[in-house]
Amino acid sequence: MTLPRFDALCIGNAICDVFAHVEEDFLVAENLIKGSMRLIDTEEAVRLYAKMGQTTRISGGSAGNTAAGIAQLGGASAYFGKIAEDELGTAYRHDMTGTGVAFDTPALTDGPPTARSMILITPDGERTMNTYLGACVELSPDDIDADQVAASAITYMEGYLWDPPGAKEAFLKAAEIAHAHKRKVSLTLSDSFCVDRYRSEFLGMMRDGTIDVLFANEHELKALYETADLDTAIDSVRKDCALTALTMGENGAMAIGRENTVHVAAEKVEDVVDLTGAGDLFAAGFLLGLSRDYDHAMSAELGCLCAAEVIRHVGARPERSLRQVAEQQGFAL
Amino acid sequence: MTLPRFDALCIGNAICDVFAHVEEDFLVAENLIKGSMRLIDTEEAVRLYAKMGQTTRISGGSAGNTAAGIAQLGGASAYFGKIAEDELGTAYRHDMTGTGVAFDTPALTDGPPTARSMILITPDGERTMNTYLGACVELSPDDIDADQVAASAITYMEGYLWDPPGAKEAFLKAAEIAHAHKRKVSLTLSDSFCVDRYRSEFLGMMRDGTIDVLFANEHELKALYETADLDTAIDSVRKDCALTALTMGENGAMAIGRENTVHVAAEKVEDVVDLTGAGDLFAAGFLLGLSRDYDHAMSAELGCLCAAEVIRHVGARPERSLRQVAEQQGFAL
Repeated sequence: MTLPRFDALCIGNAICDVFAHVEEDFLVAENLIKGSMRLIDTEEAVRLYAKMGQTTRISGGSAGNTAAGIAQLGGASAYFGKIAEDELGTAYRHDMTGTGVAFDTPALTDGPPTARSMILITPDGERTMNTYLGACVELSPDDIDADQVAASAITYMEGYLWDPPGAKEAFLKAAEIAHAHKRKVSLTLSDSFCVDRYRSEFLGMMRDGTIDVLFANEHELKALYETADLDTAIDSVRKDCALTALTMGENGAMAIGRENTVHVAAEKVEDVVDLTGAGDLFAAGFLLGLSRDYDHAMSAELGCLCAAEVIRHVGARPERSLRQVAEQQGFAL
Repeated sequence: MTLPRFDALCIGNAICDVFAHVEEDFLVAENLIKGSMRLIDTEEAVRLYAKMGQTTRISGGSAGNTAAGIAQLGGASAYFGKIAEDELGTAYRHDMTGTGVAFDTPALTDGPPTARSMILITPDGERTMNTYLGACVELSPDDIDADQVAASAITYMEGYLWDPPGAKEAFLKAAEIAHAHKRKVSLTLSDSFCVDRYRSEFLGMMRDGTIDVLFANEHELKALYETADLDTAIDSVRKDCALTALTMGENGAMAIGRENTVHVAAEKVEDVVDLTGAGDLFAAGFLLGLSRDYDHAMSAELGCLCAAEVIRHVGARPERSLRQVAEQQGFAL
């Protein structure tokens, strides 16, 4: 087994985030579930956009945010995701490669435009996402570059990949290649509604050993096991997966192994501006820690540090050098 | 004279801001003058963009920011500016109209793309702008809707309009219509290098009565009178213009009239993130104050309040309701 060239390869839906601040009333009037992600079609995208005020556009996509976070920590990351050859797609590729992420998935030349998610930020900093998948529906097994998978310590994938038709196959192909090269495979559950859509598939992959490392927040883990009791869900996931990184917002995070569990505190953040990307950036820190053989507590601490940076401003991509932030806290990256 | 429908009409270069955070070294290596705006061509835009990391895209343009600020204060504003029919232009129109600004200038259908400014934010919060004017060069006197000028208490225009070839004529046409309808005309000096380029034209318009209200910061006012001494510049501008609003960063602002001058303190801002739009948002508050017959001190205070909001985050468009911010400070808008 050769040394990996990449700390992590991230695979996900390549999405441009379109942010707008709204009042709580807006969510009520639109009948939206705060904190969730829903899929919308072109018509609904046009209708909703027309109701939004001033917007900020920043490249996003869950696994894309994680890849960018790892690069900004000074790690080596790669990304697979489908953009179109349009302005949003061009900006997406620029933002990834400009941050140092290896991103070579060919752009779609004839098909739907680059995906966008209209993200409504309420005054409490919570985000509610409305995603038009666009070009993402064309991600296919052909987009899985086996050499990059083989060269990555961990291949990390979104549960959201179950939404577009061909991406699931791409996910499974990547997992197979990774394991054939003795690399690890990781899944984030993405969203509790996503868990509802694909519960049996996700549990199946955990139980058959496809998934080595699971990422989830409390809502998602409880949704996975259809229980309102977090401890019950934790007991269950301990049996189903070798390692689970559980994020708990202001209560920090846990790393749940077969034998023991560690809990780390969250960074204290006075003014939460926008929670978008908190989980993705936690994953960036945790994955880099795993790749660098940090223990679980230290990996989770690095994750919490990254999450704290990204919730202080609009957008799921770090505004400051995460490497500097981490080094100030004593991490030698 | 009928009551105005708009508190202010703003005319300027319609630009999408593309923000990236850079270290001080980046400016040195690129030989850029911190805090300034320079014009660049397509080739340089492509070259510089390739060197920038993660970006955030937010509609901007100096007078555009002011129009949006007035609308977000609960005022009525209109805007004239030239976009192209592309993604950035579509987003620009959405952001203006979504905020409540009347923006009806026809988009360019055959010509250069929507303008963009690559704005480099250094750790001190200062911004250095690199602007590709694109479609803005096509703004012409035909784009001046006489009815909207006549219906606006104040027509406010950027000094930057002297850069594209036809916009100057558009400016002068709008000023003439405004005065014919007993409305006020206002100019912002925009940037000290802009003042260097067009000093005699700007002074000429002040001295011949085209300009009723001037906006400037200290650098621009000193550049206008080619003096290093602010008091000398203030004495001069008092003779040349009926009213000057002078912004002085953390030292607040002055309203300089023929007879007397008032000085107001700045809002205290602990963490300055990005100074882009500080002057534009000061202008929003000050212009709305003038339109609502506030005295100069109160108008300047409203301006300082708006400027303080916009320097706390990336981008020159407010993220919070300025109206709420102002009402919490006792303004009845």
